[in-house]
Amino acid sequence: MPEYKAPLRDMRFVLNEVFEADKLWSSLAGLEGAVDMETAEAILDECGKIASQVLAPINRDGDEHSSTWKDGEVTAAPGFKDAYKTYVEAGLNGLGGHPDFGGMGMPKTLVAQVEEMVQGANMAFGLAPMLTAGACLSLNAHGSQELKEKYLPNMYSGEWSGAMDLTEPHAGTDLGIIRTKAVPNADGSYDVSGTKIFITWGDHDMADNIIHLVLAKLPDAPAGPKGISLFLVPKFIVNDDGSLGERNPVTCGSIEHKMGIKGSATCVMNFDGAKGWLVGEENKGLACMFTMMNYERLGVGIQGLGISENSYQNAVAYALDRTQSRAPTGAVAKEKEADPIIVHPDVRRMLMTMRSFNEGGRAFSTYVATWLDKSKFSDNEEERKHAETMVALLTPVAKAFMSDVGLECTIAGQQVFGGHGFVREWGQEQHVRDIRITQIYEGTNGIQALDLMGRKIAGTNGAFFRVFEQDINDFIASQADNEAAAEFIEPLKAALENLNDLTQWVIDSAQSNPNEIGAASLEYLHVFGYTAFAYMWAKMAVVALPKTSDDFYRAKVATARFYTKRILPRYIGLTAAVKGGADPLFELDQDLFETA
Amino acid sequence: MPEYKAPLRDMRFVLNEVFEADKLWSSLAGLEGAVDMETAEAILDECGKIASQVLAPINRDGDEHSSTWKDGEVTAAPGFKDAYKTYVEAGLNGLGGHPDFGGMGMPKTLVAQVEEMVQGANMAFGLAPMLTAGACLSLNAHGSQELKEKYLPNMYSGEWSGAMDLTEPHAGTDLGIIRTKAVPNADGSYDVSGTKIFITWGDHDMADNIIHLVLAKLPDAPAGPKGISLFLVPKFIVNDDGSLGERNPVTCGSIEHKMGIKGSATCVMNFDGAKGWLVGEENKGLACMFTMMNYERLGVGIQGLGISENSYQNAVAYALDRTQSRAPTGAVAKEKEADPIIVHPDVRRMLMTMRSFNEGGRAFSTYVATWLDKSKFSDNEEERKHAETMVALLTPVAKAFMSDVGLECTIAGQQVFGGHGFVREWGQEQHVRDIRITQIYEGTNGIQALDLMGRKIAGTNGAFFRVFEQDINDFIASQADNEAAAEFIEPLKAALENLNDLTQWVIDSAQSNPNEIGAASLEYLHVFGYTAFAYMWAKMAVVALPKTSDDFYRAKVATARFYTKRILPRYIGLTAAVKGGADPLFELDQDLFETA
Repeated sequence: MPEYKAPLRDMRFVLNEVFEADKLWSSLAGLEGAVDMETAEAILDECGKIASQVLAPINRDGDEHSSTWKDGEVTAAPGFKDAYKTYVEAGLNGLGGHPDFGGMGMPKTLVAQVEEMVQGANMAFGLAPMLTAGACLSLNAHGSQELKEKYLPNMYSGEWSGAMDLTEPHAGTDLGIIRTKAVPNADGSYDVSGTKIFITWGDHDMADNIIHLVLAKLPDAPAGPKGISLFLVPKFIVNDDGSLGERNPVTCGSIEHKMGIKGSATCVMNFDGAKGWLVGEENKGLACMFTMMNYERLGVGIQGLGISENSYQNAVAYALDRTQSRAPTGAVAKEKEADPIIVHPDVRRMLMTMRSFNEGGRAFSTYVATWLDKSKFSDNEEERKHAETMVALLTPVAKAFMSDVGLECTIAGQQVFGGHGFVREWGQEQHVRDIRITQIYEGTNGIQALDLMGRKIAGTNGAFFRVFEQDINDFIASQADNEAAAEFIEPLKAALENLNDLTQWVIDSAQSNPNEIGAASLEYLHVFGYTAFAYMWAKMAVVALPKTSDDFYRAKVATARFYTKRILPRYIGLTAAVKGGADPLFELDQDLFETA
Repeated sequence: MPEYKAPLRDMRFVLNEVFEADKLWSSLAGLEGAVDMETAEAILDECGKIASQVLAPINRDGDEHSSTWKDGEVTAAPGFKDAYKTYVEAGLNGLGGHPDFGGMGMPKTLVAQVEEMVQGANMAFGLAPMLTAGACLSLNAHGSQELKEKYLPNMYSGEWSGAMDLTEPHAGTDLGIIRTKAVPNADGSYDVSGTKIFITWGDHDMADNIIHLVLAKLPDAPAGPKGISLFLVPKFIVNDDGSLGERNPVTCGSIEHKMGIKGSATCVMNFDGAKGWLVGEENKGLACMFTMMNYERLGVGIQGLGISENSYQNAVAYALDRTQSRAPTGAVAKEKEADPIIVHPDVRRMLMTMRSFNEGGRAFSTYVATWLDKSKFSDNEEERKHAETMVALLTPVAKAFMSDVGLECTIAGQQVFGGHGFVREWGQEQHVRDIRITQIYEGTNGIQALDLMGRKIAGTNGAFFRVFEQDINDFIASQADNEAAAEFIEPLKAALENLNDLTQWVIDSAQSNPNEIGAASLEYLHVFGYTAFAYMWAKMAVVALPKTSDDFYRAKVATARFYTKRILPRYIGLTAAVKGGADPLFELDQDLFETA
């Protein structure tokens, strides 16, 4: 019953009109000849079809029947293997991969749209290509030429998939204390032993081989995060001729029974002296991981956006169809016994909230992607450095804010359905269960907030923030004569000033109390997010305002107004809450928390 | 693994010290001799044991195995039948029932605590006694003496259970358009025919008979809500001697597969000329329903509180046990490789948020219960009227605000667990799925907000609000010389002034645009809720401040400070959002909502 339609019109708007992607792409040396808008649109169209016709229809099956485990082997949820075949045959798997090894070398600004569609249609499925892409990024950045040649082509093609093996039962956020060991062999390989948990698609039957990137410690490694190395451990040993050899002793001990994304397998992986190869330098494993983190984290934010868009579409369809009570201003559908519920202000409030977060999020993730593209493909070092600063600053916001508001949106999308939203067959409750993990994995949102507030804001004494502030101020200055846009520019200015003040307030407070960083972090990130989305909405409104004779642009301006007037003011209360400070968090003794 | 402990110490604090329940009870003529604090505490202790030792241990079984349907009969989830027996044999089922028919006649101030424990330990189970109590209330208030004598004693004892049959596939919020028919028979009974959905515990094997209270229309009934009558339809016809006779054709067609509360059966009930008896007057069925609604709605708010308390307890236990990374101010558990995560500011923020909402909610639901008790048991008409006003005003706030913040709390309680929070065995994700329904059923929170804003606030031109305002102002005046309490009184004053302004702003705006009511409603309700909780926290702080040499009271004051400084300021942003008005909700044409 639930359906998903790829939001291609809005993606074209964001790419072409808001960020002028064609111009961006042709300005970046590393992208020369790789892509133009015509190619991009063909890819988006093709992906949109696969998302709505292949991936979305099996989303509920995945939830109902799950991936299953038997005797150490995982069978992907019903329909997933065929869908995977369709997906990789369409060439979507290696879209962002390096062309030297068979990847298509596409920019993130384009790939982000593809990700939104895939994740929005079926997140449990989408995790498989997402993890493969992440593994490929690390391998491409840090692996030896030999490793890259041996593994990347089959991973880009989708013949093999990738998995990231980081977490252990006692070590999640705190990877410095992992216990998995890697003992060097004479032939240059290592024997890897230990247990990893929460390994997404750590085993399955969709691909012929699974390439694990595993964090482990060498026998003589220093304690803590500086003693971690990264290893490539394949499920099947790859022979020199490229054929698959013996089974490596890396096995799936069990899979988790989870709240959501049930179609995906979340594996306990046991390494019993499994043969692995070092990726990058010894004891530099965490750094190798960080290479891909900005991509992965943006991807998780995009998952939140995708699911929320799916929830929105179905909520709108229901709100137009379901009749119940009369509009406050008098009957609308007089021929019926009640009006469609979209006439009710509170239903509209929920739908507009979702809409404004989704379209704002699409612009914001694309905005972050423009910086990723500049940092990766520019031949100008200054531009690259500048872009890297923006990526470092904005990535935790994209991951945490988009997943947090994504949850709010799916809750709203479920609420529109009333009691039917609680019943599985309508599909809305699955979105709530699926999206919930995006706030948790790839670094919990609390960790993202700490990364933003501690490392990126306080750690640079506000320098990174001022780069972002300058970008907004440049935009504001460019609209000085645009009177029509003032209704969006003025509130943006006020929000930015507030964020600037708050940034300084936290930096100052942290001088005397290090706890102020963590105490402020989550709400600070939200204040940042609301402000960043206000920037996106102002940018979009500026494009749309002259074209409101067309429905699409009229809707854009209306949604911008809703965001500005009804959502943006939330930052005021959050700012006041941050300024409540750290003391109220630490007055209660640790041993008085338990219920008396 | 998850455990639940009844928060008896805090309940005693709220009853004895904050609301002086003993004094209240002895002042109410209708409660004469019914209860004193000693009896009350014995009941709370006994219920606490059953909640933690009988109901909590089967909560996850209920979720994993669900109630099941086969050939028209429902079998309750594993362990539920035995637990029900224990529960009713302990005399807890008829606690609030009328003494003339075997009830214990206990005040709501006490029953509210019992409800919190039962619902907090196992909400799927708790729905059975909750629905029975609701049906008994309607029957006791509106049924004939004959009906009451025939049904109430066995319902209070728990031998029979009750169900409320309101919703139909096309009629949820809008009960005026129901289609179920009741045709009078010559013997004074009626033949009831139609289909009802979402009937909680509409069938099961825990009780010998199930007494349905069914909304239906007489053949000549006027259209709309004024043409609805209420009927009692038993699963088994009760013979004149009280024994069970023939099976009435009211059958369970299927049960829903739901997001949560899976231990409970949510039934499609088919009435095929089932024999029923009129309760109350013809065409006055909705009014009969409203009698119980204030009790039921408060009960749903209490469900939110109970589940949130359960989630909090397990989150605290995990945060004290789980070690990960070091405290920002330096290692605390130096003998371990990492510190317990409760040292981290953001973990504390989550726990303190839950704690402040739970203890605030416990005080607030008890506060509302004091008005329910006065409205029911006082012999002074003026006092009853005054209390009825407070009940009418505060009930939608209790239902919606406590369930909304309850969801926030269970999300936080899950987040504390990181990845483990997403895994079923840890129990935290079930709380999120269970509590979600409290925002939906018994009138969605959007409907509660509309009831508050439309009927209770605008509908009385602010008169009901001024009664509540006076109550707070009396309290504030009583603390004029209490300098120590100023840190709580001053923010309360500011919040109340803001709420007063906002109330008038909405009433004024609605003069020119009826949509302003619904456009403001949800956020207005939240502003109201934050302010009401600030009142509760100020009341509690006033009691606790002189006693902070004792841990319990020190913790109370610390939690009051957290609420005041870190949570209360949220109202500022919400107020600004409300003042964004209705226009931004209606600028987008209905046919432009679909994704382009």
